[in-house]
Amino acid sequence: MTDAAELTARLIRCPSVTPEEGGALDLLGGLLGRAGFQVHRVDRNGTPNLFARWGDKGARSFGFNGHTDVVPPGDPAAWTHPPFSGHVESGVIWGRGATDMKSGVAAFAAAAIDFVTNTPPDGAIILAITGDEEGPAQDGTRALLDWMAERDERMDVCIVGEPSNPDFMGEMMKIGRRGSVTFRIKAAGLQGHAAYPHRARNPLHALTRFLEGLIAAPLDEGTEHFDPSGLQITSIDCGNPASNVIPATATAIVNIRFNDLHDGASLTGELERRAGAITAETGVAIEIVPHVSGDAFLTKPGDFVDLVRDVVEQETGHQPELSTSGGTSDARFVKDHCPVVEFGLVGHYMHQVDERVPVAQVQQLQAIYHKILERFFA
Amino acid sequence: MTDAAELTARLIRCPSVTPEEGGALDLLGGLLGRAGFQVHRVDRNGTPNLFARWGDKGARSFGFNGHTDVVPPGDPAAWTHPPFSGHVESGVIWGRGATDMKSGVAAFAAAAIDFVTNTPPDGAIILAITGDEEGPAQDGTRALLDWMAERDERMDVCIVGEPSNPDFMGEMMKIGRRGSVTFRIKAAGLQGHAAYPHRARNPLHALTRFLEGLIAAPLDEGTEHFDPSGLQITSIDCGNPASNVIPATATAIVNIRFNDLHDGASLTGELERRAGAITAETGVAIEIVPHVSGDAFLTKPGDFVDLVRDVVEQETGHQPELSTSGGTSDARFVKDHCPVVEFGLVGHYMHQVDERVPVAQVQQLQAIYHKILERFFA
Ligand SMILES: [Zn+2]
Ligand SMILES: [Zn+2]
Repeated sequence: MTDAAELTARLIRCPSVTPEEGGALDLLGGLLGRAGFQVHRVDRNGTPNLFARWGDKGARSFGFNGHTDVVPPGDPAAWTHPPFSGHVESGVIWGRGATDMKSGVAAFAAAAIDFVTNTPPDGAIILAITGDEEGPAQDGTRALLDWMAERDERMDVCIVGEPSNPDFMGEMMKIGRRGSVTFRIKAAGLQGHAAYPHRARNPLHALTRFLEGLIAAPLDEGTEHFDPSGLQITSIDCGNPASNVIPATATAIVNIRFNDLHDGASLTGELERRAGAITAETGVAIEIVPHVSGDAFLTKPGDFVDLVRDVVEQETGHQPELSTSGGTSDARFVKDHCPVVEFGLVGHYMHQVDERVPVAQVQQLQAIYHKILERFFA
Repeated sequence: MTDAAELTARLIRCPSVTPEEGGALDLLGGLLGRAGFQVHRVDRNGTPNLFARWGDKGARSFGFNGHTDVVPPGDPAAWTHPPFSGHVESGVIWGRGATDMKSGVAAFAAAAIDFVTNTPPDGAIILAITGDEEGPAQDGTRALLDWMAERDERMDVCIVGEPSNPDFMGEMMKIGRRGSVTFRIKAAGLQGHAAYPHRARNPLHALTRFLEGLIAAPLDEGTEHFDPSGLQITSIDCGNPASNVIPATATAIVNIRFNDLHDGASLTGELERRAGAITAETGVAIEIVPHVSGDAFLTKPGDFVDLVRDVVEQETGHQPELSTSGGTSDARFVKDHCPVVEFGLVGHYMHQVDERVPVAQVQQLQAIYHKILERFFA
């Protein structure tokens, strides 16, 4: 039997800070190849990715998606054990990626290897593993899915192995995600002296009014499977050193996490409409540049969601909440390919100093993934 | 007769960019001394100032206040004539300080010299001229007034010779000024991820709400002699590079020009009260640091104001508006000493490239000041 905990520690020892491969995908490729998987490196624009399939192309297939890249460790001296040591002590594995998400990748790789070795299924298992989820993510899971589409490689369903449980195993699985859009806003008025405002047009007044309008009322009240959409102003900048001068321009950044009542285009239209009203009133031009990181999506409750939920409940004793909360993940790309859910570890210590994970938790996740494969191919 | 226009050109040739004396006060001191004035340099902390009195200390006295320092010329190559050339051509004097306000100083110095020479009055004339009005102004007219107070030197009334007419001579005189206070505001919340705002406290949301409250309604509707108070946000800054991160802190700068319904302390109290309400609601601490540049003041219409207004009307054919508009001037210091009004040239080209003034306008101002002295001592 393959030990996902040991594999986690070995993966942590690969220093794969985005965009470095660090040996992590090579390690996985070797293991999977020896277990009978067809393995392909699917690098694009220097970003490393790994595709592995056991079984025939075109057969009914189960997919796993995850990433081996990690965020930087910060000051290594701040860590109890070096961040790339994969140190194991008292049943805990230490290091960058211990929860996000070398453990998740190790758990599904180990489960898949054991499953095809012991009970070869009538179908296929696909692992699509990227080396860039924490970075720009333009040539990561996207590149894998593009490559697969060109070759008629397809998954019928997919689990993304990101940490999904806030506090304990079995607490939560994700069946969708809110979308995310970032707006860069520039207000252009007319510079002048603070004592003569009638000769100026203050971009900060127009911007303040615009932003206050955005935060004054919630965007919505939420929907059946989604929390209310949320809007955060993440920066306002002017850089005017002269306290008695009305500046010419000012900028703001607004991030919106939105549910299935909206999409990037509808929100952009709404902000442009509001900006237009303020421009008409103040004479201050307001330019809005949207960047949509991902639209909202939902894998509707049904057979696949039920299968994962039932196994998780059986293995953990908790019926997981079907959630769409949290930030974005590569599930926002996979959802265009096939039904996708996210289930993984407890997300404690993600991106923090002294990131670590209990050995037992990784092994429990491995067992859950194994059971899911059994049920899927039963 | 002393030619104020020629004296203006000579003063322009003294490169007295704040805090440089540039020879301007020496030139004036020499002229005034030769005309029988007692002349004292009243320098404080390196800032040059000039006090001159004709007549006896303690006699009924008329004062003039002005400054010889100028703002920097910027790129000299941008000027039609070099900024310190004092070039005179086709009845126009060119150079930095031509309107603000070497011309005003030249006009009252020339008027005073001619007046005491030709018709020695029963009383005193005091000229309080600073070399720092455009700079910090801590050791300029303030230093002169402190020095005078220590020596029982006093003016019964004072004219500040700053440009007071927006477009034509006789259009406007100033009988007061709005006050000015600058608030530096710091909002301190709790950093977090934009997808998890319930774990953060966004200082930009609190700040936006606070600022919108300040600009939503006018501070007042104005008073008998004053325009409504005005509030301008002159900067908002955060400097958050991560569009998906709620920042920990943000700052803003607010400048208020206020009339006689307010003072620096009352406005500070009002802003602190509003900030406190938003802190109670949001948990974001809002710190407010005021800097009062000057409180509002008014020289009530009466004998002195009437005298100046009548002479201006007689010499220009226009009855000047009694205004309290515009930015601050050193009148904000003089008003604590004696009744003060401002009357000078047309303010075109102040602080601009190709600053210049018609010879005839300087001579007209000289004549007005001379008539004012005649009437005062009649
Ligand atoms: Zn992750
Ligand atoms: Zn001036």
